[in-house]
Amino acid sequence: MADEFARRWPENTTGLDAVHRYALLPSGKLLRPHLLARSALAVGGSLEAVLPAAVGFEVTHTGSLLHDDIIDQDAVRRGRPAVHVAFGPEMAIVAGNALIFTWFAALAECAAYGIPHRRIVGAMEIQAAAGQQICRGAALELSLVGDLEASLETYSEMARAKTAALFEAACQVGAILGGGEAPQIAALGVFGDHLGCAFQIRDDLLPYREDGAGGGKPADSDLRNRRPTLPVLLAHREATPAQRAVLRACMMPGPDEGEAFGRLAGVLRATGALDAAEQSARHHAEQARRALAEIPPSADRDALQALTTTVDIPLARSA
Amino acid sequence: MADEFARRWPENTTGLDAVHRYALLPSGKLLRPHLLARSALAVGGSLEAVLPAAVGFEVTHTGSLLHDDIIDQDAVRRGRPAVHVAFGPEMAIVAGNALIFTWFAALAECAAYGIPHRRIVGAMEIQAAAGQQICRGAALELSLVGDLEASLETYSEMARAKTAALFEAACQVGAILGGGEAPQIAALGVFGDHLGCAFQIRDDLLPYREDGAGGGKPADSDLRNRRPTLPVLLAHREATPAQRAVLRACMMPGPDEGEAFGRLAGVLRATGALDAAEQSARHHAEQARRALAEIPPSADRDALQALTTTVDIPLARSA
Repeated sequence: MADEFARRWPENTTGLDAVHRYALLPSGKLLRPHLLARSALAVGGSLEAVLPAAVGFEVTHTGSLLHDDIIDQDAVRRGRPAVHVAFGPEMAIVAGNALIFTWFAALAECAAYGIPHRRIVGAMEIQAAAGQQICRGAALELSLVGDLEASLETYSEMARAKTAALFEAACQVGAILGGGEAPQIAALGVFGDHLGCAFQIRDDLLPYREDGAGGGKPADSDLRNRRPTLPVLLAHREATPAQRAVLRACMMPGPDEGEAFGRLAGVLRATGALDAAEQSARHHAEQARRALAEIPPSADRDALQALTTTVDIPLARSA
Repeated sequence: MADEFARRWPENTTGLDAVHRYALLPSGKLLRPHLLARSALAVGGSLEAVLPAAVGFEVTHTGSLLHDDIIDQDAVRRGRPAVHVAFGPEMAIVAGNALIFTWFAALAECAAYGIPHRRIVGAMEIQAAAGQQICRGAALELSLVGDLEASLETYSEMARAKTAALFEAACQVGAILGGGEAPQIAALGVFGDHLGCAFQIRDDLLPYREDGAGGGKPADSDLRNRRPTLPVLLAHREATPAQRAVLRACMMPGPDEGEAFGRLAGVLRATGALDAAEQSARHHAEQARRALAEIPPSADRDALQALTTTVDIPLARSA
């Protein structure tokens, strides 16, 4: 799969192609392409025929990161300068847009491998709806800046739209292009949705990991952007008035963000919010596993199931 | 057509919907939807069946304007605060992205009106390629900032990608969804391409119109953003060393942009660049008219042809 990216975005290109190569290579875990490919294979599809669509999902994910990094003013991505730092914010906006279009161009390529047009139109509908959802999630997130009173339902709506919608779509598109029956397509969609929710919560918890495995994301990005993540919202519900005051103070722009982060992490541990968030991630992982019961046993179903265990990794143990 | 926008983006919505309503209503000339609808009708298609796709073209055009206005730091659009001013740049990025996805969601709707899936996949391919072209054009434009030595070929490549690609795609998608034959689809594409080139040149000339009809676009936006438009490039080729010095000075950021604009306009008139650019627009309009010969005569073909005469309006007469 990684070779496919190097083939499509070769060295020594200029302009947008060079920006895209910088953003896409070396490739990351390629989680969304794998979800699509395994879902297609699990319902009897062919890898070769769905490969372009799988590539497309990584491409649009990367496009959304280009824009997210502008919005969050995150200067570092995967340990390197973010695209808007390396090429300027104007180019990052344009390059991100181009990657959205490539998502649909890549889907269209599947027709050449004999995938029926009806399935491709169904997949386009899923992709377009998922893209709209991602934007709704991002807009909702913008509206929640600094809001410690946001309900868990609102958080959940935001996380499902912002993150889980693309996981869900990758599984559904794989199942559709692979020729799955309606119940299989639906089950793989439920699987992707829950897996995505688990991953978003894991992402919320990353800055608090004791092993420092923050994935290259600045540990204080959520705090600096005053994002009410799940652990913060859970802590606020359980916090004493004094702890709430700490949470509020930490969510205000301040001179010493490192110190604010330390105090915030203390309240999150003391209120049990980290454990509660971890439990929520596990719950979603369990729901994801259950959804796979609809899919006949195979090595591909096993591979999908294995993804649910990665969110079981202890994230933030000590109090 | 305009009713369709009011129906889809009703009053009293919130979040992204409210941003989209602000951006889309009251609707403008709806040129791209009209190109699509007339192209479909001209080859025997039905308006009802292609209406969603036609709406989609206005939607994605609007999305690109949201991002253009951020990039160009234009604060005013159609006489009102631009979206990034009214709702913030972060929301404008997200809202623009959502409109790209709506373009494809709208296309998918046409299946419900009986348009064959094969045609919809063909249209998706056109839309995705046009979107990529628009981004290439925008990236090329960014790379040309302040470059008075840019060749006319480079200008032409940029203008075709940035502007004409969407005109071309609107005509092609109309022709495909309407059931046109391959030569008709190709001819309508050529028509849209030339019409788009003529419109981009007209847009370049707008700030220099004597009647002040700048379309709500700040007259000095191109200058402030150091965009080498066609009239400026044509002037540079014909300019004396003293006039070139004026052009260079005007393309540098300066304290008095109104005065710089006046001096630039003087050189553009003196070198005959405004007349030459106007002539280029007329040439493209003529080529667009010729391409319509492939299409059987009808009121719809006449309506398409009539669009080519709007670029014949005298733009910048006096020397």
